Parts: sequence; structure tokens; C-alpha cells
Amino acid sequence: MPVPQHIFDPPFNIIRCSHVVLDVADLGASVAFYENIIGLHVEDRDNTSAYLRGSEEHQHHSLVLRKAATPACARLGFRVGDESDLDKAGSFFAENGVLYSFVERPFQGRTLHVTDPFGFRLEFCASMEKRPHLLRRYDLYKGCHPQRLDHFNVFAAEVQDTVDFYARLGFRLTEYAEEDGEGGRIAAAWMQRKGNVHDFAITNGRGPRLHHLAYWVPNPMNILHLCDVMASSGLLTSLERGPGRHGISNAFFLYVRDPDGHRVELYSSDYQTMDHDHEPLRWSLRDPRRQTLWGAPAPRSWFEQGSPFLGQEVREPLFVADVRIAD
Amino acid sequence: MPVPQHIFDPPFNIIRCSHVVLDVADLGASVAFYENIIGLHVEDRDNTSAYLRGSEEHQHHSLVLRKAATPACARLGFRVGDESDLDKAGSFFAENGVLYSFVERPFQGRTLHVTDPFGFRLEFCASMEKRPHLLRRYDLYKGCHPQRLDHFNVFAAEVQDTVDFYARLGFRLTEYAEEDGEGGRIAAAWMQRKGNVHDFAITNGRGPRLHHLAYWVPNPMNILHLCDVMASSGLLTSLERGPGRHGISNAFFLYVRDPDGHRVELYSSDYQTMDHDHEPLRWSLRDPRRQTLWGAPAPRSWFEQGSPFLGQEVREPLFVADVRIAD
Amino acid sequence: MPVPQHIFDPPFNIIRCSHVVLDVADLGASVAFYENIIGLHVEDRDNTSAYLRGSEEHQHHSLVLRKAATPACARLGFRVGDESDLDKAGSFFAENGVLYSFVERPFQGRTLHVTDPFGFRLEFCASMEKRPHLLRRYDLYKGCHPQRLDHFNVFAAEVQDTVDFYARLGFRLTEYAEEDGEGGRIAAAWMQRKGNVHDFAITNGRGPRLHHLAYWVPNPMNILHLCDVMASSGLLTSLERGPGRHGISNAFFLYVRDPDGHRVELYSSDYQTMDHDHEPLRWSLRDPRRQTLWGAPAPRSWFEQGSPFLGQEVREPLFVADVRIAD
Amino acid sequence: MPVPQHIFDPPFNIIRCSHVVLDVADLGASVAFYENIIGLHVEDRDNTSAYLRGSEEHQHHSLVLRKAATPACARLGFRVGDESDLDKAGSFFAENGVLYSFVERPFQGRTLHVTDPFGFRLEFCASMEKRPHLLRRYDLYKGCHPQRLDHFNVFAAEVQDTVDFYARLGFRLTEYAEEDGEGGRIAAAWMQRKGNVHDFAITNGRGPRLHHLAYWVPNPMNILHLCDVMASSGLLTSLERGPGRHGISNAFFLYVRDPDGHRVELYSSDYQTMDHDHEPLRWSLRDPRRQTLWGAPAPRSWFEQGSPFLGQEVREPLFVADVRIAD
Repeated sequence: MPVPQHIFDPPFNIIRCSHVVLDVADLGASVAFYENIIGLHVEDRDNTSAYLRGSEEHQHHSLVLRKAATPACARLGFRVGDESDLDKAGSFFAENGVLYSFVERPFQGRTLHVTDPFGFRLEFCASMEKRPHLLRRYDLYKGCHPQRLDHFNVFAAEVQDTVDFYARLGFRLTEYAEEDGEGGRIAAAWMQRKGNVHDFAITNGRGPRLHHLAYWVPNPMNILHLCDVMASSGLLTSLERGPGRHGISNAFFLYVRDPDGHRVELYSSDYQTMDHDHEPLRWSLRDPRRQTLWGAPAPRSWFEQGSPFLGQEVREPLFVADVRIAD
Repeated sequence: MPVPQHIFDPPFNIIRCSHVVLDVADLGASVAFYENIIGLHVEDRDNTSAYLRGSEEHQHHSLVLRKAATPACARLGFRVGDESDLDKAGSFFAENGVLYSFVERPFQGRTLHVTDPFGFRLEFCASMEKRPHLLRRYDLYKGCHPQRLDHFNVFAAEVQDTVDFYARLGFRLTEYAEEDGEGGRIAAAWMQRKGNVHDFAITNGRGPRLHHLAYWVPNPMNILHLCDVMASSGLLTSLERGPGRHGISNAFFLYVRDPDGHRVELYSSDYQTMDHDHEPLRWSLRDPRRQTLWGAPAPRSWFEQGSPFLGQEVREPLFVADVRIAD
Repeated sequence: MPVPQHIFDPPFNIIRCSHVVLDVADLGASVAFYENIIGLHVEDRDNTSAYLRGSEEHQHHSLVLRKAATPACARLGFRVGDESDLDKAGSFFAENGVLYSFVERPFQGRTLHVTDPFGFRLEFCASMEKRPHLLRRYDLYKGCHPQRLDHFNVFAAEVQDTVDFYARLGFRLTEYAEEDGEGGRIAAAWMQRKGNVHDFAITNGRGPRLHHLAYWVPNPMNILHLCDVMASSGLLTSLERGPGRHGISNAFFLYVRDPDGHRVELYSSDYQTMDHDHEPLRWSLRDPRRQTLWGAPAPRSWFEQGSPFLGQEVREPLFVADVRIAD
Repeated sequence: MPVPQHIFDPPFNIIRCSHVVLDVADLGASVAFYENIIGLHVEDRDNTSAYLRGSEEHQHHSLVLRKAATPACARLGFRVGDESDLDKAGSFFAENGVLYSFVERPFQGRTLHVTDPFGFRLEFCASMEKRPHLLRRYDLYKGCHPQRLDHFNVFAAEVQDTVDFYARLGFRLTEYAEEDGEGGRIAAAWMQRKGNVHDFAITNGRGPRLHHLAYWVPNPMNILHLCDVMASSGLLTSLERGPGRHGISNAFFLYVRDPDGHRVELYSSDYQTMDHDHEPLRWSLRDPRRQTLWGAPAPRSWFEQGSPFLGQEVREPLFVADVRIAD
């Protein structure tokens, strides 16, 4: 199937994935999980919302937790270059039949809201209130020392169209998994704006849903320690997959589930992809090292479960890829 | 079932597990595996045998590989305090109806051979040729930086009797897994002479067979790197279990299989047990954190496969313990 | 002193620092050092040159070693977006009175040569021959597992002018050290194009000279192991500074000297700086945590020694900053 | 100078170093340091004393802090095999002209007090109240994850006599530093009972004084993190030496000073020494790799400062060894 070309003059300049808004059933339980177990810093909190960030993040928040009746992913947030990019974005979406609105969000500059053609609820802003970063405040480090939000991964019912749409926004493909043979379909795609492996990954499946959000941590020892802490904190069943090494992205990973089942990846290592002639790496769906370099298959829940987007109907995927599941 | 008491004045003084002799089908392939992948140092080698050791080991070898028609475990070797302990050992075995002989072995002092009542082939010596240790020869480090032989683990068909026999030899119980309820049977026992968790572990199963030998490595990063190296060296299927954290012993572990299927554990962390009042830690067979603190069950092969002892018939175990297997 | 503003529409698009060309007295000794001790991969070699790269690098080389009568830094190489950027670069330099030429270099696309107004010899290219990256070829990993060239650091005799010139090229300031008080002068500046802390750092001193080139390594354990290996390889005196933690950039670092005295930093950790509103972090020259978060001062050699640029006269700096030296 | 021989049938059976009693000026400040920065677990505390232990320690305490007018080392504590060893110890000391007394100490069994001929205040006990160990309670881990008390190191004014005396108690020499040439004097000695590098080390200097107590930590990353935490907690000047690699013992080390200046080593790696034929490793005082494999000399304070023993006059050493100091 067609692999999208890199676009170097996109309609507006997306810098990187920036933040995510999650609806959670029990705000206290979720804050406790992300603060004490994962180790994010709570920057602000009231009765209905909490704002958290990683140690290197200057911006006010990369994770917003909102008390809600039903757990969901409310928004995926991206940072654009400057205010003019927001206006260009509005124009682009309007020209492509996508409704947009400008809204006010606490601690953020002017914020553009859209729901893309596939049901992913997005927001864009060019600025956020700043806070001194905490990278050198080791006295405040907790949990697995999460440093920054790294990427989102979503289930899309229409993978190829979704990949093509985001390629038009300037996301560049870095790795992808494809069926073998002529007419083999793309089953998953990793796309970047900030020059590493991904800001946004798209996986074939019932969608639109959030598969996971990922925080980058300094090294594998932080991730091993998180396993130990979760195992001795009554959170054994929240350790969903890993630790292990992805073939894709070469990352050392762990997947955990938060109190509402939202999936969080802790992610270490990565590589650079900012050269204009950087070519996407193709993986055969049949190559077991794609999922895990060390060969252990992922559990069924990892392929099937995800967070719906607020108010969006979930559709069956256009096709069912043949992947290896641990049962 | 009765837990054996610590004996502080054993019939002879076993210092620690010292070395193991493995029969292998292809000496070159086995040496390549242990030298280049695991990272042991080849101290001597001829057409039929190779002698290897870890970086901190002063003694000539802790692993002997012998070319043989049939892969097997030929001997488990233990170090005793001095020459007089060898004579005391001979007397003890004779008094208990166990035949013994003194033999010459290359690079070893006077060596006592016995086959214990359960079919485990043992050898004891008080001295071995010395070599400068290589601990500070980081320029020679290879593989996962194995530092020393740490312990053996065997399948025994008659666990309780085997535990009781080794307790009489002065091995002290540190941890054990037991069925719940009255009359619950011991299914596995970890026993030590050198003051850490174990020199010799005994697991219920078809026996006598060697379950694994274990080398201690400095830290989990060495083990993660070994996974990466094996995965990219065509040895993916030799990664049998892990990496993970044992509940028992708290060790960070990985189990790999050598070219003949002999199982090797790479093992990091440990704790001290030399106090005379150190009490054995009991694990319920039903506690999933016993096998793996992080909850992942071991594969079937791990419970069922092992290396027979040279010339020893393998017997079915007296009972079948109810353990959790990943299938 | 004036801190340069970020420029988002530079005259041509520099993507990142890309490679360095070093003149060395004994090619064999230098290759042995970079291959066996540092762990770079030798991609090509003949009697007069060797080409090396890190494990994640797709491009043919990031380090070129050339046999020469006198050790020197021959070129600092940068990657630009595409071929048109090379022409724009030529025009920009011509307009600013800097001579340029297009040359052919092995394994590189069309290459632009300039010597900047301060004597730094640069080259720019938009493409280089590609090689499969070796990130997942853990079987080939050596040394401290260097993954990619990360940055250059130079001694400049005219720091402020040099900073201003590179700011015009689109380099954005991320951190800087400055004298306290009104009229306090910038003594060092860290500037980036690729979105992390730096591609190019400028330090007050006798210049133009190369202070160091830096390779990024996955984690601090790789750096500790390199210390051990160098200490046991007769390279104790080549361990110049560290290991330690920089306040600046938060990096875990080690500085070593190659056989010609060229300084190499091994560098782990980092943070992202691609937001357009990312503000430079100011350090007082008086803050000891700037150099080393843990307080140990750098040795005198680290402040005074560097590699001259081929054929360039070295000038005294415009001022002498008051820094703390370990003597 | 004469190196003492190993004694395998000592007058009584010392198992290992077990605990230390420190007098501190501000109990709250000291508890805060050892609990929050170092990461020991506070097991009991009242207005005048606090009792702490590492994560693997079953015994009630390995560190006792006592509020006192003057900071000092009050006692070095050793564990013996059983109660009969205490009586044998009393007899031994009486026969050698050393006064002893049996005392009651909180949470300890019958405790023998002696001051050895060189002024070191010791206590011996065969039992202590037990607590469940916290090795698998990763949810309680703090600081640098100290696991167990590993050893003491003292300044002795009469090194050779002190070494000889402790050898008679069954301590076996594992490493020592000696002047070169005939009649070269021992300047430092490392001696063990528990089968690793040391329980008790003796350094030439103004004595009797405690040079340091050492806790074992799982890996170097824990030690690097402690450096970062201390640097960002206003404790920069308490980072006295390291991190680095000792040539002696091969340990990765860091030396810090507590609020009263008592020195604490955090110590990782080690090796086994329990074989009866284990030979002491000699270091020339001139070998710089002895102190630090990576070559950095220790600061003057490290050679000169120590904690006096409660009520003991400090004497000048019999000789001044020629060591390398960083000034």
C-alpha cells in the first residue's frame, strides 16, 4: 500500500505532541497513581481537575485529569510554532471540511479544537504558562522519574486514510508494519514531528480509541524499579506488558494501566529522525521481533483494549490484521 | 512437612558450590556460546574439554565442558575447607552406604567422587589451581560480565528426603515453597553453605536432573544487554524465561538454554543468610509472586525440561505439585 | 550582554551537526581507540582515512579520521535540509563576505566548504550515502555503545560575536554562562538546531580551537564501564574529567582524550528544546553547579587544551573569565 | 612486614559486623539524613535514640543514633554464632587482659562490651529482635536503596598490632596496602569474617577513630542518584569523595558525611573470599589504582578526618605513610 511521502512545508507548523486530557472516574485515585506510582509532578489541582508534568517539561502540564462520569480520552494536545500557525490550522481544517473552534483552556494560550475526520479529538496551542523545569530538582524525583510526554498511540478503524491525513499535516513516517505480498496493507504506522521516532502512532483496530500515551524515562533501571514498586503496592494486575525491548523504535518499554484502564507506556531509548532523507523502516507483520525484540508476544488485552474518545462512536476496523497474541 | 533444622557442626565442611561438569555434543559450539554470548573466560582448552571461569574467580575453572556423545550433567562440584574434610567426607558417605572414590582431575587437588542416594553425581575438592582473578581486567570483559558461579538447581523425585540429606551435610534452608494446609508438602527448597540465598536448590520433578546452573552478574543492565545480544545473534529461541524478578531470593533473573539445552540462569542481587538464627522463608505454592514478583508465569519447558545426570535413570516425582504455567 | 533572539526563518535550513573530520598522526592508533575503546563502527577504511559511525546513524560516517603530519580539527560538518539549502548557504556566506566552495567528499553529496569569520572550518551537505543502522545489531555493540554524534564544543576568542553569528544561522540559545552584574559578558553558550540542548557550543578561550566532540550513549552505566575499561587498558591518563553530572544540560558526562589529544565527551541524558518559546537558561559564572552538579571542579587541562583548526592561527580571547579550576 | 595467617578455629565465632552506635548532636537532623537522603528504614525511635536498618536486614537495627553532647562513635557491633560464643569471647578477652562486661541493650540479646587494646569500643551479641525484611517492599524504598551494613573502617595508630589482634579473632586478610621494599610497613588492611572483602578495615592514622561505616547498595545507578539528590538538597559539601571505582575491593563507591561529620560509604559490587586458601591481595602504596581505579586522588579530609571513639584518647600513628592527596 502507498507509503506517504514526507511533506516539508505543511499547512501549519506542528512542533510536537504536547499534552493529553483524560476523563477519570475517581480523581483522587488517578492523581495518586500518576503522582506516587508513575512519579509525575502535580502542578495544579482543584476539585474537578489536576494538571501534571514530567521533570524536564517547562510547560504547565502534559497531562490533564478531569473528573467525569465515564472514563474517556477527551483531547490529544499538540503544540504549534506560534499564534499564526493556529490561524493557518483553522483555515486548513475549514478547507477540508473539519469544523473548528477557538476555546479558552486554563494555563494555555489560545486553543484550537477540532475533531478530525476519523473521530480523534485534538487541540492545538502555541503557548502554555511556563514553570521552572524540575530536571535538576532531584530531591523532588518520584516513581520512575518520568521526564517528558513522548507520544500518543491510537487505534484507528481506517489506518491508511488516517496515516495519509496526518502525513498532510506534516507528520513524517518513521516505521510501519505491513502485511506481506502485493497489496499488503499497513497495519500500524509511527509518525513524528519533533525529530525522534514518534509523536503520533496509528494502529489498526476498533477506533477511534486511544491505545496509550507514553512518557520518556531516563533508563531501563527506572522501569524495572516501577515493576518492583507496582508489584509490592497491590498493582500487580496493572502491569499489562513488559518490561521488554520493542523491535520497533528499539525502545525499552513497560505498559501499565491506570485506575480507569487508560494505558500508559514508560519508554526509554529512542533515535533521531530529523534528516529530510530519513526513510521509513518497514516491518513485516510476520516478524515477531517487531513487537518485542526478545520474542515474547503481547497479551490479548493489549491488542483489544483502549480508551474511547469522548462522545465518539467506535467503529470496527476495515480489516483484521494477523498478529501474534499470547494466550 | 518437616522443615530441617540448621546444623552448625556438619560431618565435613562444605564451603560452597564450586564448579560443574557438563557433557556437550559440540564442544566448539558450546565454548562459543559460553565465551562469546555469556562472557565466561576460557582458561584452558583441548580437543575434548574446555575450562571456563567468571571474572572474580581465582580458581582455575567453575565450568568444565566435555565433548560427549550424549549431553548430560556429569558432576556438580563443591569446595570443602581443607584436605581433612575430604577424608571426613569419605567416612561420612561410607557410613551412610554411599560409595566413594578419590580421583585425579586436571587442575584440581585430590577429588572425591560420590553419587548421592538420589542419583546426583557430586565431586568435592579442597583446592584447585589458582589464576589471577580478572575482576579489574575490564578490558577482557565480554557478554553479560558473569562474575562467579552462584548456585545449582536440581529436579529431585524425592524432594523431602533430598532436602533432609543435604541438611545433614550442613546445607541450611533459606526459602521453600510448600503446599498449603496440614500435611502440605515441600515442593522446592533453597539451601546454602556460603551465606547467601543458595548453593543448591531442590525442585520437585522428574529426577535426578539438573534444572540449571547460575552465574551471578553485577546488575540488571548486564542481563538486559544479554537479551538484546541473543535476540540479534539468532538465539531468540534460547531466551527461555525472563528477564524478571523472582519473589524467591529477590533476584533479577534470566534463563537461557545453551546449545545442548542445558539451562543457565544469569542472576543479579541476592541477600545474606549467615546468621545462625536466620529463619527459612516459607512461600505458599499458591502465591504467584514466588515465581515472579511481577506476575508473569514461567513457560511449560521451564517446569519440565532439564539435563539428566550421566548414567542415572530418571524417576517420576513422588507427587505432582500444582504450579502455574504459561500456556 | 545581549542574548540573541531565536530566528525561525534562517537564511538556510541547518538540520543538525552531522560529522567531524580530525587529522591524526597515527591512523592505526586512532582507529583502534575509536573502534575498540569508544566502540564506534568502522564503516570504511583505507591507508589515509577511516570513516566511523554510531549505532543509530544511518549515514555513512559521523567521524572521519585522516592521516596527517599534524593533529588538527579539519572540519565540522553540518547537515542541511536539501540541496537548495546548500545554494542558499553559498549566497548567504557570499553576502557576508565569507568565501565558499563546493567540493566532492567521499560518501557525501555535494559539499559546501567555508571558514567562518572566526576561523572555524565548516562543511555542509544535504545527503550522505546511507547504511542500515546498527541500533538493533546488539551483537556488534562494542565499547561504551556510542549511538550518535551529539554536538561540538569550540573555544572562541570572540564569544559574543561568534554567538551572534551562529544565531543568525538559526542556532537557538538554550543555556549560557555569564558574568554577574551589569555588563557581565557571556563566557559560554549552548546552541541548538535539532531540538535538544546543543549542536554547537561556544566557550571563551584561545581560539579558534575544537574543545570537544560528543557522542551520545544510552545510559550512565555505559560510561562507568568505559572508565573501567580505560583504566585497565593502560589509558588511565586519557581519562581527563568525570564521570559526573553537568549542571548545564543535566548530562551525565565523561571526557577522554584520543591518541592525539583530541577531546571526546561521552554524554547521556539531555532534554528537548524545540518549542519556539523555549527560553535560554542563564547560569552565573559563580555557580559551581554549572560545571558539575556534584561540585568537583574541572582540571586545568580541560580549560586550556584544545585542538587547533587546520591552518588557522589561534588568538587570545578578548577577556579572561574567572572560572574555578581544580589544581 | 608480616602478613597474618588465616585462623580457622578462632577462640569464638564472629559471624559478621552487625551494627554501629553513633552519638549525634541533633537527633532529628541525623534521622532525617539517614532516613530521607540515605534511605534507611527507621524501625524505632524515642527522644534520645533512633534505630535504623537496611532493606534486607532481618535484625531490628544496624544503625543506632543516640543524642549526645559530643559526636562520637560509641560502639562497633558484631554478631557471634550463638550464646556460647559470648562466653568464649569473655574468656578470651579476660585471658588477654581486656576487661569485659555483659550489658542489656534494647532490642538485642545478651551483649558483651569490651574496649580492645587499641581503644576500639566493641560490642558482641548472638541475637537481636527480628523484623520482617523489607527487600520485597519496594513501595517503601527511599534514598539510594541501602540494603545492608557491609563493613567498618577505622584509623588505627598501631596498624600492624591491630591487624595481628583481629587476625587472632579469626578475621582473614583479603587485601592490604604496603610500603615497597624490605621492611615495608602495612598501611591499610581489609579483613573479613562473612566471606566477602571486609567486615573490618584498618587504616594507618591518628587513632582510634572511625573512618567510615559502609552500606551496600544494589548498583551504581543508586549511587549516582544519591549524588544528584544531595546536590539538589543543599548537601553539596557533604559529598566528600566519589563516585568512583576502588581498585581495592573493586567497589563502586561514594563517601558522604552525615550532619555530625560521621563518614558513610555507599558501596556496590564486591567479591567472595570464603575459600580457605584465599590469598590476600597486596597493593603497593605507590599504585594509584589502589585508591581509585580511575586515578582521581582522594581529598585531604578523607585522609585526616574521622570520628573519635567515645571517651578514647586519640594517638598519633606510629608512622606516616606516603599517600597521594588531591590538594
